[in-house]
Amino acid sequence: MTEPANPNYATEVTRDFARQGIMQNLGAYLISVTPGQVEMGVDFRHDLTQQHGYLHAGVITTIVDSACGFAAYTLMPPGSGVLTVEYKVNFMAPARGEKFIAVGRVVKAGKTLSVCNGEVFAVQNGERKVIAVIQTTMMRMAEKAES
Amino acid sequence: MTEPANPNYATEVTRDFARQGIMQNLGAYLISVTPGQVEMGVDFRHDLTQQHGYLHAGVITTIVDSACGFAAYTLMPPGSGVLTVEYKVNFMAPARGEKFIAVGRVVKAGKTLSVCNGEVFAVQNGERKVIAVIQTTMMRMAEKAES
Amino acid sequence: MTEPANPNYATEVTRDFARQGIMQNLGAYLISVTPGQVEMGVDFRHDLTQQHGYLHAGVITTIVDSACGFAAYTLMPPGSGVLTVEYKVNFMAPARGEKFIAVGRVVKAGKTLSVCNGEVFAVQNGERKVIAVIQTTMMRMAEKAES
Amino acid sequence: MTEPANPNYATEVTRDFARQGIMQNLGAYLISVTPGQVEMGVDFRHDLTQQHGYLHAGVITTIVDSACGFAAYTLMPPGSGVLTVEYKVNFMAPARGEKFIAVGRVVKAGKTLSVCNGEVFAVQNGERKVIAVIQTTMMRMAEKAES
Repeated sequence: MTEPANPNYATEVTRDFARQGIMQNLGAYLISVTPGQVEMGVDFRHDLTQQHGYLHAGVITTIVDSACGFAAYTLMPPGSGVLTVEYKVNFMAPARGEKFIAVGRVVKAGKTLSVCNGEVFAVQNGERKVIAVIQTTMMRMAEKAES
Repeated sequence: MTEPANPNYATEVTRDFARQGIMQNLGAYLISVTPGQVEMGVDFRHDLTQQHGYLHAGVITTIVDSACGFAAYTLMPPGSGVLTVEYKVNFMAPARGEKFIAVGRVVKAGKTLSVCNGEVFAVQNGERKVIAVIQTTMMRMAEKAES
Repeated sequence: MTEPANPNYATEVTRDFARQGIMQNLGAYLISVTPGQVEMGVDFRHDLTQQHGYLHAGVITTIVDSACGFAAYTLMPPGSGVLTVEYKVNFMAPARGEKFIAVGRVVKAGKTLSVCNGEVFAVQNGERKVIAVIQTTMMRMAEKAES
Repeated sequence: MTEPANPNYATEVTRDFARQGIMQNLGAYLISVTPGQVEMGVDFRHDLTQQHGYLHAGVITTIVDSACGFAAYTLMPPGSGVLTVEYKVNFMAPARGEKFIAVGRVVKAGKTLSVCNGEVFAVQNGERKVIAVIQTTMMRMAEKAES
């Protein structure tokens, strides 16, 4: 989309992803990191479900929120931190599948605020179906030196 | 708020809560279930964090979404199922604390759609601070007989 | 996008548009009506502004909400009515321009609920710039006979 | 709610309200301006309606967005400007009534971002009924000197 202002964006996304305890808990994995777009995946597991046995809406949100946050990060200057201001997610079909792919992308990269959107796909028997869409606001923070 | 149409609402919320694999994963617990309002909690754990060591936005959302869904359920007629149509969450402060309390409540209980809102509080050294607010739409489903 | 279930969808959108008093007030106009997508426009006027002289966020929302509602309508069976359940709009740049174009499209056409998204563009000196994005839920109603 | 940092907040809200061309168009009026909360009203008129003859969702949004924006403004330091980042509105009942009252209030007043919520009530035959709820993010801008 745009030229990344931070040449190390991919390394840093990978590093920050590894620092998120919840990602290891969920077994989530990065699929691709490009300027303005990030893809992540998570496989179905029984300890990620709601009462009908499908993936819980909160798990779907966790991965697509992170995909959007990292997408916003890829376009920020070096030394930035990213924070979720808010998001809105619509769930359009039951989260039934063997694995789930979240795509987050930047719609508008601002100096302070970035607007992103994204989708989550359920993959079942090789078929890919959109099950959720997100629209979200991310904020750039000047990161503490040590990080 | 309103008279519950289903006298077994509390038992059924407790049963459905136990059926959510993600709740056991997170170590979440029901605090109270009253007509039109449900409270849940989750304790801090390192495998629930984002890269700065605070609770991940997705975990906060998971518990407050469930609190709202169950709150909507308490006012539905027997034999209903509840489904999250969509939600919008604002994060107002870092999720720093020993434990987190989510409150979900019904604003409008409709025949098909219910509107709920709620908050998540971080509890640290005995102090309680609002860190997130939600506004959400829930849908009533005629549940399959066996359930 | 999808085959329209109602062959008269375009005539009916035009009729319902003409019935919206607010559209005449704003001087809004339909640009195109195709299955699953509707475009509308509104020209800048001083009585549509906020305190800095730009188009008010509420006016932007009014046209993109209607574009989405009509887009949902184009895919509904004959005899349907459409109702806005909720929407979320992000404003990404000041609404500065001579005219504004709203595009609404269906992401998922459900039996009861449809999810739509859309954008609003400001047109200034022949240049088109996205200033707002929407994600929204629409509901199908069985319309009263007379309509 | 909080002590206002700007002693002239009420005068300035009144001034900015008067500068909004859309407010005169709609015939909207300020009802009350207190620290952290603003109330506005608008009377029913045929040129503010959607196709079923009720107030258009966009008009409801226009007044409650402004009420929230002004509520955020009351808690900002002198010389600030306020901007709507995004909002989410749920419509819970048809906007049927003789007049409509919007209440906007600050949930969290931040240095840059403020979170507000609010309601819109329809008043019919002396009865007041909630028809819409909003959750929104407002941004503080350092205002140009002249204003």
